[in-house]
Amino acid sequence: MNIDMIRAAAERLSGHARRTPFLNSPFIDDIAGRRVWVKPECLQHTGSFKFRGAWSALSAMDDAQRSGGVVAFSSGNHAQGVAYAAKLHGVAAVIVMPSDSPALKIANTRAFGAEVILYDRETENREEIGADLSAKRGLTLIKPFDEPQVIAGQGTCGLEIAEQAAQAGVTKADVIVCCGGGGLTSGIALALEAEAPGLRARPAEPEGFDDVARSLRSGGIERNNRSAGNICDAILTPQPGDITFPILHRLCGPGLVVSEHDVLAAMGHAFNRLKVVAEPGGAAALAAALFRQDEIDGEDVIVTISGGNVDAPMFQRALETL
Amino acid sequence: MNIDMIRAAAERLSGHARRTPFLNSPFIDDIAGRRVWVKPECLQHTGSFKFRGAWSALSAMDDAQRSGGVVAFSSGNHAQGVAYAAKLHGVAAVIVMPSDSPALKIANTRAFGAEVILYDRETENREEIGADLSAKRGLTLIKPFDEPQVIAGQGTCGLEIAEQAAQAGVTKADVIVCCGGGGLTSGIALALEAEAPGLRARPAEPEGFDDVARSLRSGGIERNNRSAGNICDAILTPQPGDITFPILHRLCGPGLVVSEHDVLAAMGHAFNRLKVVAEPGGAAALAAALFRQDEIDGEDVIVTISGGNVDAPMFQRALETL
Repeated sequence: MNIDMIRAAAERLSGHARRTPFLNSPFIDDIAGRRVWVKPECLQHTGSFKFRGAWSALSAMDDAQRSGGVVAFSSGNHAQGVAYAAKLHGVAAVIVMPSDSPALKIANTRAFGAEVILYDRETENREEIGADLSAKRGLTLIKPFDEPQVIAGQGTCGLEIAEQAAQAGVTKADVIVCCGGGGLTSGIALALEAEAPGLRARPAEPEGFDDVARSLRSGGIERNNRSAGNICDAILTPQPGDITFPILHRLCGPGLVVSEHDVLAAMGHAFNRLKVVAEPGGAAALAAALFRQDEIDGEDVIVTISGGNVDAPMFQRALETL
Repeated sequence: MNIDMIRAAAERLSGHARRTPFLNSPFIDDIAGRRVWVKPECLQHTGSFKFRGAWSALSAMDDAQRSGGVVAFSSGNHAQGVAYAAKLHGVAAVIVMPSDSPALKIANTRAFGAEVILYDRETENREEIGADLSAKRGLTLIKPFDEPQVIAGQGTCGLEIAEQAAQAGVTKADVIVCCGGGGLTSGIALALEAEAPGLRARPAEPEGFDDVARSLRSGGIERNNRSAGNICDAILTPQPGDITFPILHRLCGPGLVVSEHDVLAAMGHAFNRLKVVAEPGGAAALAAALFRQDEIDGEDVIVTISGGNVDAPMFQRALETL
């Protein structure tokens, strides 16, 4: 896992993934007490950065492997990223989703052209279903984060941040990244190390799911006690990955931990001031910039808005914070 | 008023206005029955394209004129554009706004450092108030649309559309533009004439405020019967301008007229599928692409989302259409 893989992924993604803009607002700056630069990956295809990693993984396969089709486990952003990237590559995708997933997410994944296989969380094991599918149908598994070509794809977001920060005159700043398993955070950290050494990645996580922040402190992989029960559904991963954690440990600054209320308020400010739609897990980094400002140094801070796949009732809760 | 003025404005805006992206979604395409490309000017500074025209006008003034300060009358977006562009130029701005403007627009205009003077849309004439202030206080009036340097600034959006459409492989399409007085529409039309002759501008307006559509049909300037009473506050202009109309008449295809319900539904789809915040007047063109598809030809259509300055209660109405 190295910068050359990220640069190669950037070439494969060129003309396929969107180069998302670099936004700011004087009103956001006022709240945060410093200049805040926002990388809105909610504007990426499928509404999250996950399209980058999915495209990277699919485009890195040889023809024989790719034409056999791919499989992924996810009920969320990785599912949509893999389904759409596979559709654009003209190959079959099977997404294994829990049968109690929201109907809209199942419908969206199918609308991106994927075959959805539902399983019962209580009685079935998704790894067994996947292994069975892989063996019987020759599908290649695309893991959500602990997979080098996926990390390389997410790292292309970091290459863009390095360029856009330089254009904005920002040479020294923390780059706060919404963090689940650490695919986006580790990819960005590697890109910044090579292209913008004055910029330092820092993970943002929800309260109660701060496995990465604790792992960075202890120096070893720590797990969360719970697997659900927070609005930031996109980043509720049990623990950092075996590939991502050593990168995070070597390159990242301390983790930032945010409350559900602060996440909703950050979604409201993104609506009001940046005119973009952030989902709860995608607003964690902005929440940290706005409401954990004492834990941040410097005149500038950069944040990712990693996704915007939120349903209307949850977004209404964010609007009510305004 | 010509393409050279737009190109000169693009040079003055470079590094100051944002180059907004070019978005699309397969879900939006399915509804519209063709490929839909979206130019989200809601992501421009101050949340609308108006920053382009304001920066163009201010940057075109000589030092003596600019340092005397500026005045503008506006329902909100031109107000914010002028206020922020004036602040960035370090000069005073007085903004004359209707008293029924969205609270966010009035608050923002004040927050950008401008002096705000409110008037009653039904009983007072904003042109007279503006002319009076200009005479008494030596301020230079920046008209919202019927002003060559403002049209030149808005036209820079058209230069970007021409480039981005070519990159997307789109050489022939209607470009539907949310239209009030016609500043953005005429600027885009002039830019397309020079840079992308296969692209044709078409105005989109709300029902009951279709002065431009009627004027294009009759060949002369037609007025609206009402001046208020539609959610599309940003584009409720009494009639096309003396400078904009001849350009619109020479270059535009037929106008498209949309209902308030369709505008709210378009805002909902922009939230759900594009992850951007559109205000009612800014969603008129997308509403036309989605719900007036029989009046559009071709495999592709391009639309502007011209602004995103909407209060939470109105946005909630849009979410309820989903």
